[in-house]
Amino acid sequence: MRMVDLIQRKRDGQTLSADEINFIINGYTDGIIPDYQMSAFAMAVYFKDMSDQERADLTMAMVESGEKIDLSNIFGIKVDKHSTGGVGDTTTLVLGPLVASVGVPVAKMSGRGLGHTGGTIDKLEAVPGFTVEITNEEFVKLVNQNKIAVIGQSGNLTPADKKLYALRDVTATVNTIPLIASSIMSKKIAAGADAIVLDVKTGAGAFMKNLDEAKELAQAMVDIGNNVNRKTMAVISDMSQPLGFAIGNALEVKEAIDTLKGEGPKDLEELCLTLGSYMVYLANKADTLEAARNMLEEVIRNGNALETFKTFLRAQGGDDSVVDDPSKLPQAQYKIELPAKEDGYVSSIVADSIGTAAMILGAGRATKESTIDLAVGLVLNKKIGDSVKKGDSLVTIHSNQEDVEQIKEKIYSAIQIESNKVKSPILIYDTITATT
Amino acid sequence: MRMVDLIQRKRDGQTLSADEINFIINGYTDGIIPDYQMSAFAMAVYFKDMSDQERADLTMAMVESGEKIDLSNIFGIKVDKHSTGGVGDTTTLVLGPLVASVGVPVAKMSGRGLGHTGGTIDKLEAVPGFTVEITNEEFVKLVNQNKIAVIGQSGNLTPADKKLYALRDVTATVNTIPLIASSIMSKKIAAGADAIVLDVKTGAGAFMKNLDEAKELAQAMVDIGNNVNRKTMAVISDMSQPLGFAIGNALEVKEAIDTLKGEGPKDLEELCLTLGSYMVYLANKADTLEAARNMLEEVIRNGNALETFKTFLRAQGGDDSVVDDPSKLPQAQYKIELPAKEDGYVSSIVADSIGTAAMILGAGRATKESTIDLAVGLVLNKKIGDSVKKGDSLVTIHSNQEDVEQIKEKIYSAIQIESNKVKSPILIYDTITATT
Repeated sequence: MRMVDLIQRKRDGQTLSADEINFIINGYTDGIIPDYQMSAFAMAVYFKDMSDQERADLTMAMVESGEKIDLSNIFGIKVDKHSTGGVGDTTTLVLGPLVASVGVPVAKMSGRGLGHTGGTIDKLEAVPGFTVEITNEEFVKLVNQNKIAVIGQSGNLTPADKKLYALRDVTATVNTIPLIASSIMSKKIAAGADAIVLDVKTGAGAFMKNLDEAKELAQAMVDIGNNVNRKTMAVISDMSQPLGFAIGNALEVKEAIDTLKGEGPKDLEELCLTLGSYMVYLANKADTLEAARNMLEEVIRNGNALETFKTFLRAQGGDDSVVDDPSKLPQAQYKIELPAKEDGYVSSIVADSIGTAAMILGAGRATKESTIDLAVGLVLNKKIGDSVKKGDSLVTIHSNQEDVEQIKEKIYSAIQIESNKVKSPILIYDTITATT
Repeated sequence: MRMVDLIQRKRDGQTLSADEINFIINGYTDGIIPDYQMSAFAMAVYFKDMSDQERADLTMAMVESGEKIDLSNIFGIKVDKHSTGGVGDTTTLVLGPLVASVGVPVAKMSGRGLGHTGGTIDKLEAVPGFTVEITNEEFVKLVNQNKIAVIGQSGNLTPADKKLYALRDVTATVNTIPLIASSIMSKKIAAGADAIVLDVKTGAGAFMKNLDEAKELAQAMVDIGNNVNRKTMAVISDMSQPLGFAIGNALEVKEAIDTLKGEGPKDLEELCLTLGSYMVYLANKADTLEAARNMLEEVIRNGNALETFKTFLRAQGGDDSVVDDPSKLPQAQYKIELPAKEDGYVSSIVADSIGTAAMILGAGRATKESTIDLAVGLVLNKKIGDSVKKGDSLVTIHSNQEDVEQIKEKIYSAIQIESNKVKSPILIYDTITATT
């Protein structure tokens, strides 16, 4: 088998076998197939796509390229959730305790990452004492005991995907459905997921700017999952504006607590209930989505979800009193209001710009070397469709620096106010299940 | 400027500016742009093509990437000829003396190369004493004096093309018109051509297997030439069978001598007269193609073409008595006839297989390290359309090994004989001039 022939066959729109795809991925991981052949292959895939079987084969080849997490000692069906990124996305913090409290095992491996705010681990570390530095044995024990634990990413999972992603990033081959879908799915499967719920964001603040693309990506991932025997469902959710109100690490922990109490932003709560219902359903903890949803609403109402969150924090060294007194979370020195300059209705909030403003405040990492300020960030006081009077606070800036003039300018230019009434956007556009 | 953005723009079907193409080619030549970006770019070009202007800009960027041959001390318009490869192609050996004898300066830089037979230099070295190891000054002096000289390839011409070609070869991006055309044209222009006549072969033995592809490539090269102020014309000629009769180094020199005497194979003579007429016309040595052709027919008839060949050989140390007594050329020890196994008409001669048989005999190099046997090769005694009686010799094998059973089998399977009458193929399919 020669890589040049496989590139040519893909270039000519032919279909590759599992053996051929394994040859490519193993050869690339081992450094036998050079970058220059892989990038030409990726570009050929960009133009000629991959069949459903090829996508499944590629996903599993990447899973097999490195270590895999063995969650077989954890009881029950391990359902993982993945969101395709966005701004102010607090769903993971809410969903974990929420579904754990109805018996779905949440064995979360998480990272720190770059972006507008920190990763899930950074956010959880806003809780004094909380640590993800636990052993694999403790991790398994905690999930079996409390139904939820979070551990830091370790081990060399999907090295083929890491190497390929870095290459795609510099060769204009990121934006192609088969490669995006197999990348995401391979990571979830290598991390031990038995079933997967996907939250594909669409809109100005998302990777997939338009709905059709988001649906195509969601369908591709759902089909891969089901083709490799991982039950998978996807929700297409709105990211035309940030989700919830908070963008920042401690701020999002507080928002998660509010939501687990049933006092969070309505959009965040609704999305968590929807995604959570799918998770409960795929974990075989409810027979119907409706029953699943009722279970989740009940644990919010009766306080069990919140209690599970406390137990989870305590089990990993965290001070669970922050749940009852969020002022114990890191607090920024300055809370600066951003007054509206005119009367009207909020018609757009450019999520990307809002996220970048939070990152500049110190809420996220621009590079691996950046340090995060867990206290800082933004809280939106108005969202699309809300009416505004001149002088109303649009956003509260939580900052550890007094001078935030530049940030204010950035936020002002990200928020549009119109005189005519504006509808608030649809939150959930669609649900994607297996094609067959 | 970032290469990833330029790849993306080409991927999306946009047009790049001359500055952008220079950035790519200079960066790649200097090693600043890595292979993996260049191969992704080449694949994007494969799918999205290049505009006429982009092709011209790419050609000139590759010309400027290295040394250029300065032929300004040679009087007159230097017209170069390029054939896109084939089997038994003796045109260069014939055309040089032919057009030189009517005053067209032939300043030929030539190589050895891999393939079925040697390059032009190898063939000429079949003439005892002949050398291409002359200085640039001698070269210029000889062309001005005799209108023809051949020098070995030296200097670092079009390094960008060499590097890109090697990359394309292993990334399934060879077969794309804009890159093939700019590669060929950049080499001709860097070698100092003022005008260019192209001989694009088509048919089973050629790189371009079908006529439409050959026309497209010819048009692409002609347009590039004229867009960069090098008058360029192209002829589409047949390579469904080998051109002429001889495939081998000394054998082709003898065939060239025969042709310059007016006693060569008709197809070879006709193609040389056609290509030669274009060369004479582009060199402004005749006002019409018809006048040019008459001049060439005259110098064959009156012996001037042959005389020019003798002068050329002598001037570079060659024994010109081979022209009158070709038995002084290297002779193979064995001349083995290949008898027809049946009566009928020759219906096909697979040029590739015939060429490979000659190479196995030792006429060409399989790798850079191979040594060539100048004496050996094949002479076709029948061509497509010829009638054959059982026992007639189809091919004479000139060999320095007695056992040629394998070669015989190879040739037998390359030559098809049918009982029905067969037409001989068209020799010249088309002539391509500038689009505008």
